[in-house]
Formats: sequence, C-alpha cells, structure tokens
Amino acid sequence: MSLNNIVKYLGQNEEKHLNLLFDVIRQKSISATGEGVDKCADLIVSIMKGLGIRARKIDTEGLPVVYGEIMANPDALTILIYGHYDVQPAEPLEEWLSDPFEPTIRDGKIFARGSGDNKGQFMAHILAAAALKKEGWPDINVKFILDGEEESGSESLPKFIEEHREMLKADVAISSDGPKHPSGRPVVFFGVRGLLYAEIELEGAKADLHSGNNGNVAPTPAWDLIRLLNEMYPSDGDCKIPHFYDDVLPATEYEKELIKNMPFAKVEYLEQMQLKDTSMTNEDFWHKLMFEPTVNICGIGSGYQGAGSKTIIPARANVKIDFRLVPNQDPDKIFNCLESFVKERYPKAKIRRYGDLIPTKTSAELNISRAVVEAVRIGSHMEPVVQPRLGGSAPDYLITEHLKLPSIWVPFANADENNHSPNENMGLSDFYDGIKMSATIIHMLARQSKDKLLEDI
Amino acid sequence: MSLNNIVKYLGQNEEKHLNLLFDVIRQKSISATGEGVDKCADLIVSIMKGLGIRARKIDTEGLPVVYGEIMANPDALTILIYGHYDVQPAEPLEEWLSDPFEPTIRDGKIFARGSGDNKGQFMAHILAAAALKKEGWPDINVKFILDGEEESGSESLPKFIEEHREMLKADVAISSDGPKHPSGRPVVFFGVRGLLYAEIELEGAKADLHSGNNGNVAPTPAWDLIRLLNEMYPSDGDCKIPHFYDDVLPATEYEKELIKNMPFAKVEYLEQMQLKDTSMTNEDFWHKLMFEPTVNICGIGSGYQGAGSKTIIPARANVKIDFRLVPNQDPDKIFNCLESFVKERYPKAKIRRYGDLIPTKTSAELNISRAVVEAVRIGSHMEPVVQPRLGGSAPDYLITEHLKLPSIWVPFANADENNHSPNENMGLSDFYDGIKMSATIIHMLARQSKDKLLEDI
Repeated sequence: MSLNNIVKYLGQNEEKHLNLLFDVIRQKSISATGEGVDKCADLIVSIMKGLGIRARKIDTEGLPVVYGEIMANPDALTILIYGHYDVQPAEPLEEWLSDPFEPTIRDGKIFARGSGDNKGQFMAHILAAAALKKEGWPDINVKFILDGEEESGSESLPKFIEEHREMLKADVAISSDGPKHPSGRPVVFFGVRGLLYAEIELEGAKADLHSGNNGNVAPTPAWDLIRLLNEMYPSDGDCKIPHFYDDVLPATEYEKELIKNMPFAKVEYLEQMQLKDTSMTNEDFWHKLMFEPTVNICGIGSGYQGAGSKTIIPARANVKIDFRLVPNQDPDKIFNCLESFVKERYPKAKIRRYGDLIPTKTSAELNISRAVVEAVRIGSHMEPVVQPRLGGSAPDYLITEHLKLPSIWVPFANADENNHSPNENMGLSDFYDGIKMSATIIHMLARQSKDKLLEDI
Repeated sequence: MSLNNIVKYLGQNEEKHLNLLFDVIRQKSISATGEGVDKCADLIVSIMKGLGIRARKIDTEGLPVVYGEIMANPDALTILIYGHYDVQPAEPLEEWLSDPFEPTIRDGKIFARGSGDNKGQFMAHILAAAALKKEGWPDINVKFILDGEEESGSESLPKFIEEHREMLKADVAISSDGPKHPSGRPVVFFGVRGLLYAEIELEGAKADLHSGNNGNVAPTPAWDLIRLLNEMYPSDGDCKIPHFYDDVLPATEYEKELIKNMPFAKVEYLEQMQLKDTSMTNEDFWHKLMFEPTVNICGIGSGYQGAGSKTIIPARANVKIDFRLVPNQDPDKIFNCLESFVKERYPKAKIRRYGDLIPTKTSAELNISRAVVEAVRIGSHMEPVVQPRLGGSAPDYLITEHLKLPSIWVPFANADENNHSPNENMGLSDFYDGIKMSATIIHMLARQSKDKLLEDI
C-alpha cells in the first residue's frame, strides 16, 4: 500500500469526511456546563465503529473518555493519539457571524465552536486511521484517547490513567491541538512550559486611612508589596527566591540549534510590543520563551484607581503572579520556596494558590521525534518549524509524567483559528491536510523498525 | 467691661444664637453645585448687619465672599477671621437620620450639613464679636472673610485677595475649622502639611498579552513601575528623588518641646493599625506627622484584579501618589524633581498632576501665638493641645503666602463632628463654648499692647 493511494482515497472522500466532522460539531459538548458531552461521546463512538475502529465510551469520575484502537499485533509500535471532544462555551453569542453549533463554510473555512479546538483535529486522526484501515492497515497499533474535560482542566484524567494503564500502554503519544505557524508552515513541538499561579495579599490598618492625618505613621501595605516584589525580582531574569532556578535544565546543543532555525517575526514583534528596536536575536527570543521561567505579574492592585484623586492610605495590597516553569522545575517546590520567601518577610501575608501545571520535555533528538518531524516534512512538502517547547502551558504532563511516554505535538489548525473565541474556525484545507498528515505519520512510522525507533528511549 | 459680663450675656442669649445658626444652616450653600450659595451669602450679610457688624457680599470670579468688620481705630490690632459658609453636598441622603438641611438636636448635638463644617464655627466668631460690641467694643479691629467655595478648592480666593489687599489688611488671622482633641481638650495649631498629588502611568505592549506565549519577551510595565517606585522610595522616610528633602525645615527646639507634650493614644493607635507594638514615642509620632513629608501610594493598579486567575501580561500600570509636604518644600519644585526622576528612567512615562497645596508654618513662639494659646487656656479652663502643624492639608497658604499673615487655628467642633459625612453634627456645648472662646480671644488680645504682641513678627 503506497502513500499515494491513500492520498488519492482521501481526495475522493473529502465530502464524506467533512459531513462526519459536521455531525460531531453539531453535537454540543460543553464541559464547563456538561451540556451534550455524554451524547457527543456516544456519537463519536458510533462514528468510530462505523469506520471500523474498536471504540467505547468509558466513564470517569467526571465526564466520559472515548477510547478507540486499531491493533495490528501486540509487538508492533503503538501510537497513542490524544485529543479532546469537549469544547469551550460559545459565549458571547452575539459576536458570532453564524450559529456556533451549525458549521458554516465561509472563505474556505469551517466556522463553528470546536471546529479547530479540537474536533477538526482529532477527527483528522480518526479519519486518517480509518482510511489506512480501508486501504490496508500497516504493521502498527493506534490507540485513541479523547478527553471530555480538557477545557475544564482534565481533572478526572490522572485517575483514569491510573485505572487503565494496560489499555493505554503505548510507545509514543501524538497530539494535535493549537495552530500551525502563521506562515502556514507545519509545527512540531515537544513540550510546554509549566505554570504556578499564586496571589499574595498584604494587610495594614483595619481600613483605608486619611493620608494626611496618618501619613508616615500608618502601615503601608502597598509599599511593603512593592519592596517585597522588587526584592523578589529586581531585574528581568533574576528571581531572588532561593532555589528558584536550581532545577532548570539548560537547553541542549541540539535544542539551541533548533531555536536558531526558528523564525522570529521581528517587525511584527516590535510593532506589537511598541518597541523601537531589540537586541534580541531569534535564538535569544525563543530561548527566553522556552528555556527560561517567568515571574509575571498578571495583576496588582491597591487603593484608589478611579479618575482623579483620592487621598488615602490603602489598607491592603494584592498581586497575582504566574510563574511559567521550565523542566525540571516543580510547581510544589516553587510554591514552597515562594511561601518561605514571603513569610520570612511578612509573616501575616496571605498566599493563595490558583493552580499549576508541570512543565514537560520530550527530547527532539529521539529517533521517534526525528521520524515524526520527517513524516511531517514529507506529508506537508514544507520545512516544519521544529520547536522544543511551547511558551504556553498545557496538561502535557499527563502524558509525560502519568503515562511516561514521549509526547509529540503536531497541530493541524490554521494560525487564525480563534480558539476559545467567537468565530472559531478551521480551514477546509487545514482539515483535509490534517487527515493526510496523520495518515503520513502513521504510514511512515509503521514502515520503520520499531527497535530502531525506540532504541534511545 | 469684664469677661465675666460677656460670658453672662452669652449664657442669657443661647436660644437666640442657636436660632440664628439654624437660619444659616437651613439655607443650603453647596459650592460643588452652587445651590443656594448666593442666597446664603445674602442671609449672612443681613444677620451680621442685624448684629451691628458692617458687612457686604463681594462677588468674585466664582462664588461670593462675605466680608464684615468691626473697627475700633486704624491703629489697633487687627484680627482677620477666616471661615467658609459653603458646605459639602449632603449625599448619600439615605444615611442621614434626619433632614441634613433641617437642624435637629439629638443627644446634645446639632445634626445638619454644615453644622460643624463650618457654619457653627464662623457663626460662633460672629456672635462673639456681636456680643462684645453690645457690651462695649474693646480697642481692636476684627475683620471677617467668609469663603463661598472652600469645599471646592477656593479657586477664586487668590485673585480676590490680590484685589482687596487694603480691605484685608490685618496683623493676624484666626480660623476655626476642624475638631478639638478627642479628649475634649482645645487644640491650637499653626500650619498644615502641603500636598502634591501625581499619577504615573507606564505602558508596555499595545494590549494585554497571553503570559505564556509572551512571557519573558514582552515589556512588563507592572515590573517597571515596581522597580521605579522601589528606587524612588526604597524604605520609609528615605525618598531618593534628588533634592526632595533639600528645603525641609527641621523642627525648632520649641516645636520639639511642644510635640513632646502632645498626647499619643497608643492603645487606640495600635488597635487601628493592627500592630502589636511600636517603638515610636509620642515625639516620634508627631514629628513624623508634622515635620516629615510623605511619599504615599493612594492607589496602584495593573492587569487583572478579579477573583481567581487570569494569565496576562498587563499593557499598562498606574500609580497615584500623594506627597504631603512640609515647610519649605514647594509643590512645583517637587513635581519637577519627580518628573525628572521618572523621565530619566522611563522617557515615555505619562505623569499627571491632580493638585497641590503649599505647606505652611506660623511660629508657635510668636508673642501673638502665645497670647492666643493663653486665651484658649483661660477661655476653656483646660490645657490646650498646642500643635505646630496638622498632618493633613488645607489652603492655609492663602493666609500665610498671599496675605502674609501669621495664621492661627482654633477649632471649635467636637472630634466626632462627621464633617463631609452623613450625620454631620456639632455639639450644642461646643457651639456655645466656641462663642465664649472667640469672645475670650478677642477680649484678651485687645487688652494687650499691640507693639508687644507684634514685636517679633
């Protein structure tokens, strides 16, 4: 069976594939409210079965997971494809140009909630596998795990994984979520930055005070907070919380080589940032985004912020900080370090923790990683943007930490997919190309020696 | 004519005096909206005339001034009594227990807008002067200037003063506004801290950015502001703006002696400030409030301040600062120093100025100052709290800078007068005692040698 035949088959079945995607999109599956999620799981199971894929809905403590598989033989390379069938709420509805749950084609794009995030992407994998099965299934096992609560934090997934270790056993995970490069070039990435989100509150007097009658004799939590923060992070890239950088993994020579080759749209960057110039090279730029943790103020507030003047000494001051973490920083450990740093200085400070995500790293140097990049190169006829890590965060640690698998991300959506926003969309060609890309990856991995692909893991 | 006779006369005329005050209170005079201000001026002129005081309403570029005088002879000591007949708006009306413009007596207090601030206080002076006139006017000149826009910034007053220098010629100004000490002891003070109110805004990117996709490569105005502020004021009492402290007048030995004798309610202070203990002595406390400028954050804001988390890099950050200034700091000069300090570091920073007041100082050591304190001691049968300066601010510079007069403040209102708030009030006894106090001051100053009183000015 040649790749050309599959591509030909896919070209002949575009309408059928689009209709199946439309069916899945029309079935709401809003995990925030639970609306339609269970029905959507049933629908996907029935579609998968109709396409010759063994599939079933599996209940969790939260919303169900859809699991499916096409097995060649137990000894073959096993790919676990992760996707999610739940979607964000569609609000604000008035900003949509067409019904968010009735897929509508305009300007060569499918407009609908979930079109790009993530129905159009996991359906591309399902349809690719089904096409391969139809044309002659290669010597490879493919397993699908479709999360029903990704948009709400995937809270049931760790326990689900714990209870289904044997079923989920695989050699590599491939996920498609998020966009390609704005130039249209495909992207392959190998991890995400983690996250620790914390809030610090300092309190002074019982209530805001008259700044004349109390100025110089009242506690000043706003100044305390400024001095605390300045001591914590006196200049960019220099966090003074003890042990903050202890576990940071430096970029490897290979990763440095990769980011040297990543495009840096300097003109657009300078315009967006309102800067005249930057001394950053593209290597600096990507290094900062991928290999360096952040200490970012998401919000700071104290006292009067309305128009004009009000002469008070505010009674409290708050800051919300998100730390984007890099391998091998541990959110728990960083939180403890932060807490000690703050409490040593302000024992009465309140510190709240709003969530965390462990940073992840799959080596882009692995044979399997290089094989996927090569498949993407061939499948797209373009040079992929190979990216060691996303600057953003995602629960990739469920794959790398809980399943202990190399995790490779190959997004299929267009850069302007508007995920989480009104008028979410996926380009028709991005959807069709996604199917071809998935088929190419499965096909090409199946043709290689499993031992060779996995020898360096 | 003895003081005893006057006190006796005042005791016999309490009802008449109260009714006159009620008439003035009932006539609204809200300078913020202008409502009733002109009518109130007419009413006061007619009351003054009825009491035998030469009086007239004088138009300004804003709201009218009421001027009145009782002249003994051109060579006698001349006191200028400053007060204001305008009031704050009464809102929020629903929090008043009785109609704000219908004076109501409860618990021995007159509840009404303007009762304490300032109608009950300037009327005390007018009624005292009228009583003295009735019983035999002493060898002294008294002039009244009643401001119609004090609650709105007294903006027309500088020009009014410029145009009426001859009319306003005097040797000393006495004003009664604000409260006595919470213990009931009278207060005499000799100046106010000044004020400079400024806002600094720093801007980063065009809009708030995703903190994952841009963290470490985007401008961070919140951090910039923290570092700027920390550099400006790294610890309490240590402002690093060049020349900030250049013009600060140290406390004199006499002033140090005065503040050593001022009461410091440490228990109440610690409770309000939520502190366990303080190393501050009463001298430290009052020194900080009177002789040291403040660098106070009234408000600081940037980014997300709602519940929970939002992962953004805010595009801008703002801080509102009020500097309480001490003699001889100059708001213009301090603003220029601030602007230079900020612009040197952030040339694109926006700096707004919301207003200023020049700090003032009248020496408490002057013969005239000591004479007023002595009169207050005798008039109240209590040891006055003699206070070199208020921690708060007021346009006292109109008297000290524009009229070039020593300015002495003798507040008549109770400490819980609720000025500017719902249920403003003035104690009946505070009103009657105010009349006696004013009469005592005028009477006693008239009996002393003018040359002696003024020899050290």
